[in-house]
Amino acid sequence: MTDLSHRPRSVIFDTDPGIDDAMALFLLARHPALKLRAVTSVFGNASIEVTTRNARALCAFYGQPVPVAAGAAGPLFAHAARPHSTHVHGEDGLGGRAELALAEQDLAPLDPRPAHELICDMVNAEPGEITLIAVGPMTNLALALQHDPGIAAKVAQVIIMGGAFGTHGHSGNVTPVAEANIINDPEAADQVLAAPWPVVVVGLDVTHAVVMQESYLDGLRGRGGQGAAVGEFLWQATRHYQDFYHSVAGIEGIYGHDASAIAYAIDPSLFTLRAGPVRVVTEGLAVGQTIQNTRPAASLTAPWDQSPAQQVCVAVDGPRLLALFEQVFDPSFDRPAA
Amino acid sequence: MTDLSHRPRSVIFDTDPGIDDAMALFLLARHPALKLRAVTSVFGNASIEVTTRNARALCAFYGQPVPVAAGAAGPLFAHAARPHSTHVHGEDGLGGRAELALAEQDLAPLDPRPAHELICDMVNAEPGEITLIAVGPMTNLALALQHDPGIAAKVAQVIIMGGAFGTHGHSGNVTPVAEANIINDPEAADQVLAAPWPVVVVGLDVTHAVVMQESYLDGLRGRGGQGAAVGEFLWQATRHYQDFYHSVAGIEGIYGHDASAIAYAIDPSLFTLRAGPVRVVTEGLAVGQTIQNTRPAASLTAPWDQSPAQQVCVAVDGPRLLALFEQVFDPSFDRPAA
Repeated sequence: MTDLSHRPRSVIFDTDPGIDDAMALFLLARHPALKLRAVTSVFGNASIEVTTRNARALCAFYGQPVPVAAGAAGPLFAHAARPHSTHVHGEDGLGGRAELALAEQDLAPLDPRPAHELICDMVNAEPGEITLIAVGPMTNLALALQHDPGIAAKVAQVIIMGGAFGTHGHSGNVTPVAEANIINDPEAADQVLAAPWPVVVVGLDVTHAVVMQESYLDGLRGRGGQGAAVGEFLWQATRHYQDFYHSVAGIEGIYGHDASAIAYAIDPSLFTLRAGPVRVVTEGLAVGQTIQNTRPAASLTAPWDQSPAQQVCVAVDGPRLLALFEQVFDPSFDRPAA
Repeated sequence: MTDLSHRPRSVIFDTDPGIDDAMALFLLARHPALKLRAVTSVFGNASIEVTTRNARALCAFYGQPVPVAAGAAGPLFAHAARPHSTHVHGEDGLGGRAELALAEQDLAPLDPRPAHELICDMVNAEPGEITLIAVGPMTNLALALQHDPGIAAKVAQVIIMGGAFGTHGHSGNVTPVAEANIINDPEAADQVLAAPWPVVVVGLDVTHAVVMQESYLDGLRGRGGQGAAVGEFLWQATRHYQDFYHSVAGIEGIYGHDASAIAYAIDPSLFTLRAGPVRVVTEGLAVGQTIQNTRPAASLTAPWDQSPAQQVCVAVDGPRLLALFEQVFDPSFDRPAA
């Protein structure tokens, strides 16, 4: 028998790079517990044109020979459209001063399929094998479910970065109750969370406890090998991002939002989970809010009894997560052959 | 000059008795820092017929010669109507086994005015003097504002029991995000919180930290004077209520929801406040949720910049509040002449 515990998990990474997306992708690319199989881009931190180019550039920079497919340019319903988060991530999505090869011939090749078709094809080709990690708006995943609802039973796990459940007080980062990835497409998020596949939600309740201080980020620059170049790149990329968080949250550093979703895939023991159906508010004052009902299943009423129990991360060992992330910058951290 | 710090605050008590309402009214009636001036009834814990009779009976029982006016039988908009909370408070609103004189001739007399007119008349007669304490749905207060918007500038303070702000995790008691008084009339609550009068919100964030254990309630029975009869009455009234909380919250006791609003009026230092505009979700999945925006006023955008900053209680000294409540059952606790 194959020892599954030592086989890397095959991952499709759905992303809108995005500075913390770039950090997450490096962790995903370098860690032996995971095997990156494809990247799909989505609007969000910047336009779909920018995030797709960034995804292709990052795959080239990190030496990842995987297909990159372009995804949704906006939310499922046009009325939900909001400005891209370029005030956070810069016009280029990577903080405006990081050096990345962005000439067409230097980018990883673009897959001809739309993102949701790539997802469906790959999941259907390897039932039970693929983990989807989505760290932008959930539009591509919702489109994949619409395209082929059968994939829900064939995905190993869905891990999303998004949402705010108020377990440590109100903690939306766009409104008092809404997190950016969810409010960028509330309908898509609601569909993804209501689908009969196992979702783990890595939201602000935990990522606000994953603070990469300036000194921590500085420490990533001095490493040898590929890590040194990446550390320097991420240092440059995070300057603008850090200024943003200093102004809105008063921290001297950045939140490791997207890297936390990758960390969950590598080591779930970093997190404390809470089970229960999750719905998303799709209109009105609380639009974009994620709500989990934690009552016993037998006492749930509509609309909660229509949705599967999903897992929400409510606590994290932040220092251990940061140690896990830092580890992959070490030149002696060897990724075994795939 | 009059020493205002020693003059009792004149209070109109808007209530839907209701077991914890009955406890709150006793604290209000007995404590020298407050002077009960009128009681207005509202639907909620039971029908308006039941809550009005209970209000009149409790005033008689507690020896309070104040006008009692009947208020709203349902929410501002019929679509918001929900079943009364008789599963919590019993069909008679007082737990089904407490002995109270309910014959018509034994009740305090009914004021001929509707509740909202009594409120407007009394506030206009004594500008700056009246504190409104509302511990049921906010319908009467909203109707009073509609009847005469000028009262907003003439009320000393509005203290409401209601809402859940998630400062200690999601904490609705009807849905994962909605508290009963608010969801029973979300539109009214939104109007009350948006009005230009100073509102203090005493919600589940603090009342869930005010647990009256069974032993505490038992200890109220043995007191002398009026307190002994009231202690026995409240013991009987709380048996059903305690069973309810045991089944849904696993506590061996009850929450002192409404008494906490009275305690705020007596001693605000029991509570920690947080300032910011508060809005209420009036439809959809999160209907009845109270949301406070705590960003600096200068950075507020619509709809938040349209509402005044209100005060939300986010922490309470529970033991000290319980000691304050228990104090009024003591036969040596003398209420000075009004």
